[in-house]
Amino acid sequence: MKLLTFAHDDATRLGGMLADGRVVDLTQAWTTYDHLLNGVQAPNEVFDAICLGEPALQALTSLMEQSEKAGKPVLSAEGLSVLAPIPNPSKNIFCVGRNYRAHIVEGNLARGRPADEFPKALEFFTKAPTTVVGHQAQVSRHAKHTNMLDYEVELGIVIGKAGRDISPENALDHVFGYTIVNDITARDLQALHGQWFKGKSLDGTCPIGPVVTLKAAIANPNELGLELDVNGESRQSANTSDMLFDVPSIIAQLSAGMTLEPGDIIATGTPSGVGFALTPPRSLEPGDVIRARIESIGELVTTIL
Amino acid sequence: MKLLTFAHDDATRLGGMLADGRVVDLTQAWTTYDHLLNGVQAPNEVFDAICLGEPALQALTSLMEQSEKAGKPVLSAEGLSVLAPIPNPSKNIFCVGRNYRAHIVEGNLARGRPADEFPKALEFFTKAPTTVVGHQAQVSRHAKHTNMLDYEVELGIVIGKAGRDISPENALDHVFGYTIVNDITARDLQALHGQWFKGKSLDGTCPIGPVVTLKAAIANPNELGLELDVNGESRQSANTSDMLFDVPSIIAQLSAGMTLEPGDIIATGTPSGVGFALTPPRSLEPGDVIRARIESIGELVTTIL
Repeated sequence: MKLLTFAHDDATRLGGMLADGRVVDLTQAWTTYDHLLNGVQAPNEVFDAICLGEPALQALTSLMEQSEKAGKPVLSAEGLSVLAPIPNPSKNIFCVGRNYRAHIVEGNLARGRPADEFPKALEFFTKAPTTVVGHQAQVSRHAKHTNMLDYEVELGIVIGKAGRDISPENALDHVFGYTIVNDITARDLQALHGQWFKGKSLDGTCPIGPVVTLKAAIANPNELGLELDVNGESRQSANTSDMLFDVPSIIAQLSAGMTLEPGDIIATGTPSGVGFALTPPRSLEPGDVIRARIESIGELVTTIL
Repeated sequence: MKLLTFAHDDATRLGGMLADGRVVDLTQAWTTYDHLLNGVQAPNEVFDAICLGEPALQALTSLMEQSEKAGKPVLSAEGLSVLAPIPNPSKNIFCVGRNYRAHIVEGNLARGRPADEFPKALEFFTKAPTTVVGHQAQVSRHAKHTNMLDYEVELGIVIGKAGRDISPENALDHVFGYTIVNDITARDLQALHGQWFKGKSLDGTCPIGPVVTLKAAIANPNELGLELDVNGESRQSANTSDMLFDVPSIIAQLSAGMTLEPGDIIATGTPSGVGFALTPPRSLEPGDVIRARIESIGELVTTIL
């Protein structure tokens, strides 16, 4: 199942994506079929679905089937205002730095370091909640602040169950699902400020979505093709199997001594092909359309203003 | 005026600290004197007071005076369960790295670098909201995860008014007040993970409080004495005038291209005297009592478990 959050008047609604791309309005369907749901309040966004837990997911599956059969409430994806799955996260987005072998090598070479210098542990940093935007967002070029705005396609983990000191063996029990993150980065600020936070947190520079694919629908998160193009030109193309630290290792290292909570989002690092490592380096520019795709999830489109 | 948030049954209340250290229950007083307040809902914590804006601060000042005169509702500070001023911040705590000259030198020497290598721009990183605890918190030694747990007294800025691209000249307009932050740090994790987030975000490692002193009560935030002792032994003693980048510069650099929001907290860096730079280095250990003091704000006490 693929869940999403969309805007409806001044509120948000929970949507479920059908195989043909149409969207079931699950918030409305929940009310229509409330005999199924024992009076539990309708979820209005993906975070509510996470909080409702396992029984609600079974109910949502039934609602998807009933709604598809009845042909309502089913909406065309065209014109739908799709938000980030969790539009207002309650903390920063957790991010992983250099985690794909070829990206580490390209970064080392671009910075004049030995090509085979690999990190011994994951490099964690964060992006402020004010960076989060949804599918088809228009993101500022931030020309006043950066000369080198770059893209990074990444597999996003959405946490479903709280935990600390989670072992790699138990890690997937804590996952709700997976999404796409474009970790847009101001390379010059990333270098100037030493720590990466500043270059990673300009407003609107974290498109997320369009959907969260529930973990049951993904056989192996460590074997997903991911790619990104800019104006139709392929820039990144890899597989999550190239990650230095896989999904269970990321959850284990991040949760060591630190509690993960439902709704937390972890961006797991980007493969090679980023703009600053091209020869010559290429920045994102106004009008650029970035398409980030991950197998079994979908395509996240972002336009630079 | 000094505001704080305290626990009352299962809820939180807004408190105002009198000159003698006693605390006015402003949430209760707000109800008692509601003719002053035009039916506005009572604030339950410091964040609510920020959101109510300038007129509410005037009302709170009146409430403090009326309550002190009446002797109620006034509570002894003894036994009061003081929480962090903003117990559940809506994003990570913003932090500034090396910002005091003598601390930069001690860090450079401890890491075998040239003593006079100063950063050209602020190094921003964050601490997860799960690190936030209040005055008199008991914080884990985290012995399973770190061999070197360290303290850092820091002036905390509490943002009152949203803004982006804030100029240094206008920066103080966006400040609500100031608090004390103890940026407890796992030094080995800080080094191992490259980026500092992981070593800065173990659960409970961000004591904040006990109060927020409103900006009107602080003549110059860039000239405040701050000090920290462990078990009565002085470790840090400095003045915010030693900062490489002052309060307006921090707000200007952080808000460049990134929106600051009411309730955001910025820890402004620590002076010299941290444990890992002592000869030999000294870690915090179970039973240690850390007292962090800042002029015009108060004393924040933390015990290591």
